[in-house]
Amino acid sequence: MENIDAGEESARILREEVKALASEIRTLKSVEGNEDLTERKVTCMIEQKPLANHESQKKLEIRCPRGTRDYGPQDMALRKKVLDVVTECFKRHGGVTIDTPVFELRNILMGKYGEEGGKLIYDLSDQGGELLSLRYDLTVPFARYLAMNKTVMYLKRYHIGKDFDIAGSYDLMIPEAELLRIISEILNALDVGTFEIKVNHRLLLDGMFAVCGIPKKYFKAVCSSIDKLDKLPWEDVRNELCTDKHIHSDVVNKLETYVRLREHDNSLTNFDLLNWFEKDETTSKNNDIQKAVSEMKQLLEYCEIFGILSTVTIEPSLARGLDYYTGAIFEVTLKGTFEKTSMENGNADEEIQTVNIGSVAGGGRYDNLVSMFLPKHKVPCVGISIGIERLFTIMKEKSMIEHMRSKDTQILVVSAQKKLVKERMKICRLLWDNNIKAEMALKANPKMLDQMQYCEEHKIPLAVIVGERELEEGILKLRDVPSRTEQDIPRDDLVEELNRRLKHL
Amino acid sequence: MENIDAGEESARILREEVKALASEIRTLKSVEGNEDLTERKVTCMIEQKPLANHESQKKLEIRCPRGTRDYGPQDMALRKKVLDVVTECFKRHGGVTIDTPVFELRNILMGKYGEEGGKLIYDLSDQGGELLSLRYDLTVPFARYLAMNKTVMYLKRYHIGKDFDIAGSYDLMIPEAELLRIISEILNALDVGTFEIKVNHRLLLDGMFAVCGIPKKYFKAVCSSIDKLDKLPWEDVRNELCTDKHIHSDVVNKLETYVRLREHDNSLTNFDLLNWFEKDETTSKNNDIQKAVSEMKQLLEYCEIFGILSTVTIEPSLARGLDYYTGAIFEVTLKGTFEKTSMENGNADEEIQTVNIGSVAGGGRYDNLVSMFLPKHKVPCVGISIGIERLFTIMKEKSMIEHMRSKDTQILVVSAQKKLVKERMKICRLLWDNNIKAEMALKANPKMLDQMQYCEEHKIPLAVIVGERELEEGILKLRDVPSRTEQDIPRDDLVEELNRRLKHL
Repeated sequence: MENIDAGEESARILREEVKALASEIRTLKSVEGNEDLTERKVTCMIEQKPLANHESQKKLEIRCPRGTRDYGPQDMALRKKVLDVVTECFKRHGGVTIDTPVFELRNILMGKYGEEGGKLIYDLSDQGGELLSLRYDLTVPFARYLAMNKTVMYLKRYHIGKDFDIAGSYDLMIPEAELLRIISEILNALDVGTFEIKVNHRLLLDGMFAVCGIPKKYFKAVCSSIDKLDKLPWEDVRNELCTDKHIHSDVVNKLETYVRLREHDNSLTNFDLLNWFEKDETTSKNNDIQKAVSEMKQLLEYCEIFGILSTVTIEPSLARGLDYYTGAIFEVTLKGTFEKTSMENGNADEEIQTVNIGSVAGGGRYDNLVSMFLPKHKVPCVGISIGIERLFTIMKEKSMIEHMRSKDTQILVVSAQKKLVKERMKICRLLWDNNIKAEMALKANPKMLDQMQYCEEHKIPLAVIVGERELEEGILKLRDVPSRTEQDIPRDDLVEELNRRLKHL
Repeated sequence: MENIDAGEESARILREEVKALASEIRTLKSVEGNEDLTERKVTCMIEQKPLANHESQKKLEIRCPRGTRDYGPQDMALRKKVLDVVTECFKRHGGVTIDTPVFELRNILMGKYGEEGGKLIYDLSDQGGELLSLRYDLTVPFARYLAMNKTVMYLKRYHIGKDFDIAGSYDLMIPEAELLRIISEILNALDVGTFEIKVNHRLLLDGMFAVCGIPKKYFKAVCSSIDKLDKLPWEDVRNELCTDKHIHSDVVNKLETYVRLREHDNSLTNFDLLNWFEKDETTSKNNDIQKAVSEMKQLLEYCEIFGILSTVTIEPSLARGLDYYTGAIFEVTLKGTFEKTSMENGNADEEIQTVNIGSVAGGGRYDNLVSMFLPKHKVPCVGISIGIERLFTIMKEKSMIEHMRSKDTQILVVSAQKKLVKERMKICRLLWDNNIKAEMALKANPKMLDQMQYCEEHKIPLAVIVGERELEEGILKLRDVPSRTEQDIPRDDLVEELNRRLKHL
């Protein structure tokens, strides 16, 4: 367990202090005439003060926990737009949605994420009974769900706007191709620019490492290094492998041939690359590599039918951190630059900035995760997870948020004079009864100007105005906010007239 | 700090053990000839073993944490229906949505929920720096959000399908009335039966306790007892107050007069009840009570305009656990019985069961919560929170789930013979390109029967069938699943024909 509980940590420090004191006592005791000092040391040990309570020392800070943030109304409007696009796409492909709790028994999560993952799991303090952790992804809980629901052998599920998984014993690369189609549809619909779908295969990685002579126990360490090739130059990766991870330079040289095939010849198509692995004297003899090559060829063929081949790149250096992948591995990156408004000196300078957008989605096949929970229960799965937060950020940077309304209100019910709060309430009730999105100022005597400003600020298109004259005449005034034109409407015709106008908006 | 961190707790135990050992050492040292025993005790102290690790002792259990559950596809379809109704209503009233993190700095949550609340907060283990807890409700994080966003002085916000809050210095009882209207619209739209909105006021409670002579420090304890009056008979509550909480019986007798007014005369209308408090010799002299009565009269008047007065009951014994309420307090309960299918002996016996449905929503005014974070920043708020989980359960019990689809797929693309996987893929691509919700079996050679069963099982209304004959003739067969009628369609007309048919479904 890599996460050390804060209290456990203070207990450990305490134990060490006690150890040091006790050791000193022993030394002292072996020397005559030191009784005084001994006594003082023992007293110190006895009175070992409780560790300072963090809470009482700190001033109340009002902020979100590190790595988290609030989403205001404008952010949420954008987020909803993104999630709607994603969810609509998932539904178009026959997905159903399931939901699992925010936290899981700690044991369910432990040992599923490889070396790096454990550090990222938040533990809950023991509340007397269960050891719980916050879920780290949605895949492990999904596998746990499948292990608990043994009759569910086939499932296409999505987790609201984030993940899509296909579980079941299906035929080779058909579900994988559909997943890549799904992510393509989503990124196209969001209009976030060109993207690249990198594909690799766990067996290609395993096979390459095997033919290079890398011992199995180094696989994870080597994976995590070569996965950095999209960000670091080969020299840095090479250095990490040789110096930090003590891989012999001959081995690293062999590995270089495979992982830099594309770099050395950028005219290589996906099929050229796979053919190379098929024909090379060494790799052609490795069963894992040949299985991976044949499966990826099949995938490419299906991607062509689905109209997404041009965005797919076979990338032998793609590894990703997670331990549970057993077959195809995907990563989707956005390419290119976008205009960013710099506000550094208080001036909004328009400038073209190259921003490293990086990965927006990733996934792969995980055939053994369900049986890690239930040894004899085999439910092969493949899934993809979308980095929704990163997509939001990109869309915000692209100023896609500006014209977005965060409020859906269609009508503001306004009063022209004082003492009309109950009249406004009656009109609101009528509109709500008729499913019209309506608001009124929640004050007894709001100012006309404030009410009209509220319309402008929240882009509310229409205002219904009630005043003493209107009450007497049994009419209401209808104001089109953008054009400021007004029209008298008989009170009985209000709903009909509003519905007519709203249809045209 | 009511939540003791597990690690802090073990550190405390360790410190006590150390203290005991050290004390023993002192005693031993004062006696000659005990060197051996002393040495052994010291060694024991030095080698103080780390506390046993829970994880290694337990076998892997596959289940959800206590108090949590998974939602399968069918559950989620119902949940979505409920959330859509709720969200649509929130939007109709001009709400905007914000989102806050799942966990908060522990200090943000501490001391906000009164005696009971603290026990319900889940702490996260310290991951090196921040002390975090899972949020317990959405109100305290909302207040923290308002304290952090000082320019936001007015806000109607909803948290996706759960809570609705109105923040801002508005006029008396106008936002309260709108909240009660909102909850009424939602419960009516969900068609879950008759409901009752109980209303009380914090100042009525404070005033009643004061005139009965209950000291302020007993307020919370008395509140929690009288709040049980909707479930327990007066005798039990009385007993709890006198015996467990040591309230003098004279005081309890006085209190009884107020909290059982309705029980003693069930012909009392809301206005009768409020008038009673206005005229009674004792209560008429208490300012808090008179303020509460006048505010609740105003609320009732607005409720009448909003058409919801018949569901509102003023209930002087309504207290609710949470400490932060300062004004009106609400609780909404569902009434009555419903048919429940009992499956006890494996037979589905239809029987009418009376089920205690209880509270489905609650809330109130909390004017001081924001200033608990930021002393000089006053943002009065009132909110209501809906027990979505309980509503789901009720709707499931009412068998509202049975005819619900969990999958939206409109078309299954089916092949009549083997080796047609790529043909099915091409048709799927065409349909997806045209925003039609389509699926195909993810197997290379699925059986016709299995494919048709999939349609029946998931209520997919239409199947497009491709076979060798159809390929040769440039047509496709379109099958209406419920009627089993089939029609040949030229391939080029497929999308148009499907859209035409889907419009009529």
